[in-house]
Amino acid sequence: MRTNRQIILKSTPRGVPTPDNFTVRSAPLPEPGANSVLCRTRYLSLDPYMRSQIAGRHLSGTVTAGDVMRGETVSEVVHSNAASFPPGQLVRCMGGWQEYSVHGAGDLDAVQATVDPPSYALSVLGMTGLTAYAGMIWQAGVRAGDCVVIPAVTGGVGSIAAQLCALRGARVIGIAGSAEKCRHAVESLGVTACIERRSEDVDTRLGELCPDGIDVYFDLVGGPTLHAACRRLAHYGRVVLGGLMAEYNRDDRSPGPAPGLLIAKRAIVSGLVVYDYEDRRDEYKLECLPLLAKGKLHQREDVTDGLENAPAAFQRLMSGQSFGKVIVRL
Amino acid sequence: MRTNRQIILKSTPRGVPTPDNFTVRSAPLPEPGANSVLCRTRYLSLDPYMRSQIAGRHLSGTVTAGDVMRGETVSEVVHSNAASFPPGQLVRCMGGWQEYSVHGAGDLDAVQATVDPPSYALSVLGMTGLTAYAGMIWQAGVRAGDCVVIPAVTGGVGSIAAQLCALRGARVIGIAGSAEKCRHAVESLGVTACIERRSEDVDTRLGELCPDGIDVYFDLVGGPTLHAACRRLAHYGRVVLGGLMAEYNRDDRSPGPAPGLLIAKRAIVSGLVVYDYEDRRDEYKLECLPLLAKGKLHQREDVTDGLENAPAAFQRLMSGQSFGKVIVRL
Repeated sequence: MRTNRQIILKSTPRGVPTPDNFTVRSAPLPEPGANSVLCRTRYLSLDPYMRSQIAGRHLSGTVTAGDVMRGETVSEVVHSNAASFPPGQLVRCMGGWQEYSVHGAGDLDAVQATVDPPSYALSVLGMTGLTAYAGMIWQAGVRAGDCVVIPAVTGGVGSIAAQLCALRGARVIGIAGSAEKCRHAVESLGVTACIERRSEDVDTRLGELCPDGIDVYFDLVGGPTLHAACRRLAHYGRVVLGGLMAEYNRDDRSPGPAPGLLIAKRAIVSGLVVYDYEDRRDEYKLECLPLLAKGKLHQREDVTDGLENAPAAFQRLMSGQSFGKVIVRL
Repeated sequence: MRTNRQIILKSTPRGVPTPDNFTVRSAPLPEPGANSVLCRTRYLSLDPYMRSQIAGRHLSGTVTAGDVMRGETVSEVVHSNAASFPPGQLVRCMGGWQEYSVHGAGDLDAVQATVDPPSYALSVLGMTGLTAYAGMIWQAGVRAGDCVVIPAVTGGVGSIAAQLCALRGARVIGIAGSAEKCRHAVESLGVTACIERRSEDVDTRLGELCPDGIDVYFDLVGGPTLHAACRRLAHYGRVVLGGLMAEYNRDDRSPGPAPGLLIAKRAIVSGLVVYDYEDRRDEYKLECLPLLAKGKLHQREDVTDGLENAPAAFQRLMSGQSFGKVIVRL
């Protein structure tokens, strides 16, 4: 009998998770019921929100010690009790950190054969791409001439956000964690200038690069960068709160910018939850697919082979070592 | 020769300003130039933002020791070099804490004879009324069924905001600093329930009174009340930042609500500066005047007689002792 290898959370990490916090388990192969399918995982998306699930602070629920790690996957249907998803069909689903998973037909989204590589269904065409579009286009309403600042600019969300804004004629200032990432942002993502946050003073550089203030700040990191950006907002500046990368590894929660600052700037700060935009995914694809086809939208993926290497890839992600959207290929 | 009595800031206060921080000075009567008028102050509006001007933290500018205190007034034209503003005409202008002031015709707004008492041009028809309308109707978009929480609910802004929301069918929860104020809020301002912040635990009471969460919070005070309200926001809750009453007397600035909280609630936080809405004042009056005429909008004023008593009235305002919109009558 075939078994299902799974990555289990062994212990709740303090700080950055390491492979020691996870373990591999072999479980019996699950069996699909009526109108359900058995899927084999092909690509697994690793994302910072998973750290928040482990910490018990994510709205999608908590992963505790002993649980299989959750995550979005591109999987292949290997046994089907649902006519619309025949064996061989690639689907996007919440397969988790495991080789096999079972899903009702209603929880599957077919991945077209034109999506190449299929992992794009987890990156530019997936949750990170939709997050970027929802944050910058729907929520912040970025338009030509806006000065937009995007931290973690070579990451899954940041890299698509930067390109979408630049394509609209905005002036995009990126922030990234290495000179190589900064170079990539300027050369491939349409970023006007990129601040190397480890060697440069972000606050000072923001002042130099955004002399008329920041019109839009896409907060993907929280922490001091959020405060620095808010101090330099232009009037009517928009701040979209999309993530807390700088805080996910910490136990405490740093506070937000002072209300008096937001009043003086007439700022609008809004929280972004990508799940709210699930029903507008087609709208996003409608814009995104032609851009991809024309080579105007680039997706750099940071691909790790082997399910057993997912914990190490997650550690790299959560310590800022990854470069591009993090994907595990099985 | 007649002189012009003025209230001068003598020293920058620490904490709540007292009459000791001010002094009375007699200055020569100013003379109006071409297309200008000499005005005699009839009513002076006292408002919390003045504390912020003294502290050097207000976007309208700073009042330093030796300066005449600034403020909006209803004044009477006593000598005119501007045909459109004949002697005897009442006008709304930035007359300041003094008996006489000179203004160019472009800086005057005629007060119609139907505005009775004329001080209404400083309260319900003035800056505080416009602030209430801009915050709750234009910025937060309050609609029937919303649960709206308003602190300082018997104050200049809060009292009008509460009534405008209640008239739209919202459920309004007030917060005030005495049992008498709470009674007034419920009996005269359309408030469903009012929390007495000195004797009740605001956080607990908000939980009891807003079991489905707060849809709209009009932040007029900052501090712990802002944080408590944000913790209890409903999904898609809107927070309008309109003032920082709890902080104006302090040197430090307390931080805002944690970004993670705002993300989870998909909250929208926006800063309100009433000056931005000056060109929409007529639109506000169009709704407000019929409500006033029909007795559906009440304005309680806290009137002090005599310019020399303005510092004491300001002290009462800044220590939460006033009850209604604070006006000094000369």
